[in-house]
Amino acid sequence: MMLSRRNVGFLLGILACGWSGVIHAQSDPLPSWNDGAVKKSITDFVARVTTQGSAEFVPPPERIATFDNDGTLWCEQPFYFQLAFAFDRIKAMAPDHPEWKTKQPFKALLDKDMKALAASGEKGLLDIVAVTHTGMTTDEFAGAVTDWTKTARHPRFKRPYTEMVYQPMLELLAYLRANGFKTFVVSGGGVEFMRPWMEKVYGIPPEQVVGSSGVVKFQTGTDGKPILMKLAKIEFIDDGPGKPVGINRFIGRRPIFAFGNSDGDLQMLQWIAAGNGARFAGLVHHTDADREYAYDRQSRIGKLDKALDEAGSRGWTVVDMKRDWKTVFPAEIK
Amino acid sequence: MMLSRRNVGFLLGILACGWSGVIHAQSDPLPSWNDGAVKKSITDFVARVTTQGSAEFVPPPERIATFDNDGTLWCEQPFYFQLAFAFDRIKAMAPDHPEWKTKQPFKALLDKDMKALAASGEKGLLDIVAVTHTGMTTDEFAGAVTDWTKTARHPRFKRPYTEMVYQPMLELLAYLRANGFKTFVVSGGGVEFMRPWMEKVYGIPPEQVVGSSGVVKFQTGTDGKPILMKLAKIEFIDDGPGKPVGINRFIGRRPIFAFGNSDGDLQMLQWIAAGNGARFAGLVHHTDADREYAYDRQSRIGKLDKALDEAGSRGWTVVDMKRDWKTVFPAEIK
Repeated sequence: MMLSRRNVGFLLGILACGWSGVIHAQSDPLPSWNDGAVKKSITDFVARVTTQGSAEFVPPPERIATFDNDGTLWCEQPFYFQLAFAFDRIKAMAPDHPEWKTKQPFKALLDKDMKALAASGEKGLLDIVAVTHTGMTTDEFAGAVTDWTKTARHPRFKRPYTEMVYQPMLELLAYLRANGFKTFVVSGGGVEFMRPWMEKVYGIPPEQVVGSSGVVKFQTGTDGKPILMKLAKIEFIDDGPGKPVGINRFIGRRPIFAFGNSDGDLQMLQWIAAGNGARFAGLVHHTDADREYAYDRQSRIGKLDKALDEAGSRGWTVVDMKRDWKTVFPAEIK
Repeated sequence: MMLSRRNVGFLLGILACGWSGVIHAQSDPLPSWNDGAVKKSITDFVARVTTQGSAEFVPPPERIATFDNDGTLWCEQPFYFQLAFAFDRIKAMAPDHPEWKTKQPFKALLDKDMKALAASGEKGLLDIVAVTHTGMTTDEFAGAVTDWTKTARHPRFKRPYTEMVYQPMLELLAYLRANGFKTFVVSGGGVEFMRPWMEKVYGIPPEQVVGSSGVVKFQTGTDGKPILMKLAKIEFIDDGPGKPVGINRFIGRRPIFAFGNSDGDLQMLQWIAAGNGARFAGLVHHTDADREYAYDRQSRIGKLDKALDEAGSRGWTVVDMKRDWKTVFPAEIK
């Protein structure tokens, strides 16, 4: 066809729809996954739902895949990265807040007094989240997140947090998209914290990121232009039973494929598995203390206990990170 | 390239991304729009943002277009169609509710006593919405909506409500998608009322429908399977200042193109117009009492007053339905 303007626009549209996932794909679309039952359970499922005429064929618009983020797409140790962002923000904001030198939990954080910080409990944590996440516009917050991703480094691996993502999962996202799936993040993390970097890192646009949120208010700024102000009030917690609720609210249909890594993902997996037709429910089991971390039933972060039992009894796919992944982190994110 | 399974999946992905909008497009992508300044304002805008190398070029992922629904994509007279659905549901449910014969506002509705119904006021209306929209699962409600769209008819035009959509706007949606735009509905209507039919009628999938919502709860059904139960509690009103908030919550970036028809769309238009770069803000002005309805500043439904003034002072596009549209409704929706 002639390259008219409409066609150019259309071709650009294809690019946005996942062309890059195809032209860069190698003969093995999941090269960082070791061959075995886990990898096969993924490729078999995709073959079943994408084969025209198959009893389990699923039309592309219904190929919805949802992924938890913390511990599923990126690392969540030694503690949630959003908390690292909040702590770094406190340090950055401290010069403008001399009162924090004597006020908890800020004093504890600035003094690196982890015992006092822990003693401030949930209220202390909420205070830290409130001053670092609210009282500014959505645009200002997005800018703060973007700045942080450029400079902050993981304490153990010394690389940017946005390079603490799992290479095998990046391949899985691209593989699903190349097979007509629409990929979503459904995370307990703050949605405004995730959206600024996920398009670049995961290829998942802001409108396909579901997360926890605070109340946002439409106001007129000092320059007369409209702004959206982030208020210090929680609106929605996208975790546990909140995940199927968030999926219903933001996506509006039941996914056929979901991946999580903790008990906070149990209800999401139950919900998608209970639908009619072929379903894929997966869990990442952190078993690799050398290359990443090893934790499950007793962990304070990313506890995997009930969901691990249910995965066993229901035959869900459980990724053993040590056994199933050739590499954990990508060489470098450009 | 060879037609491997991945390529087939990829081609199907293209279909989902708007191929049909291209191969069915005629030489004039907007045949139901009369030539003139309004039509030109649309095609000029699309040309500006899709021309590579142009100073106003917008990459496809950022080509977000949002549309109000009632009065913008489909008719909203003589009253909102969702209310017609609720009234029809009351009649359908009445045999199981003998107590309604003596209980307001149900008695008034069943007796077709519009004066008594009006006297029940906002509380009466909320009672009707509560019994027709809540106390059931999301799947049950979607089924009720789908059934209703098949049988209900508009009182004046005697056609299904899903054929009371505007042919010129269907063409506009397809035209934008063929040019790499992602089209969203952002409506004050209930999101669960809109999603069951919009994919078929507008080509807009459930995950691109933003609307008002009630609280939904994750529960275990009597058969042990998980369900999502609709509770009688309002969660979010996606109208007026709620529209930019809804856009931020569900889409997460600022649209470059928006269309509305009433003062309930004013803040959405202000929000998108205040962004950097090229922006298109449009209003449908209902001026055609013969082919549809004529109403604006004094209307109880779809009041267009402040937004009409602001459109004038800011140079937004105002569609004069009588002047600008060759046809109003499609011949038939297949």
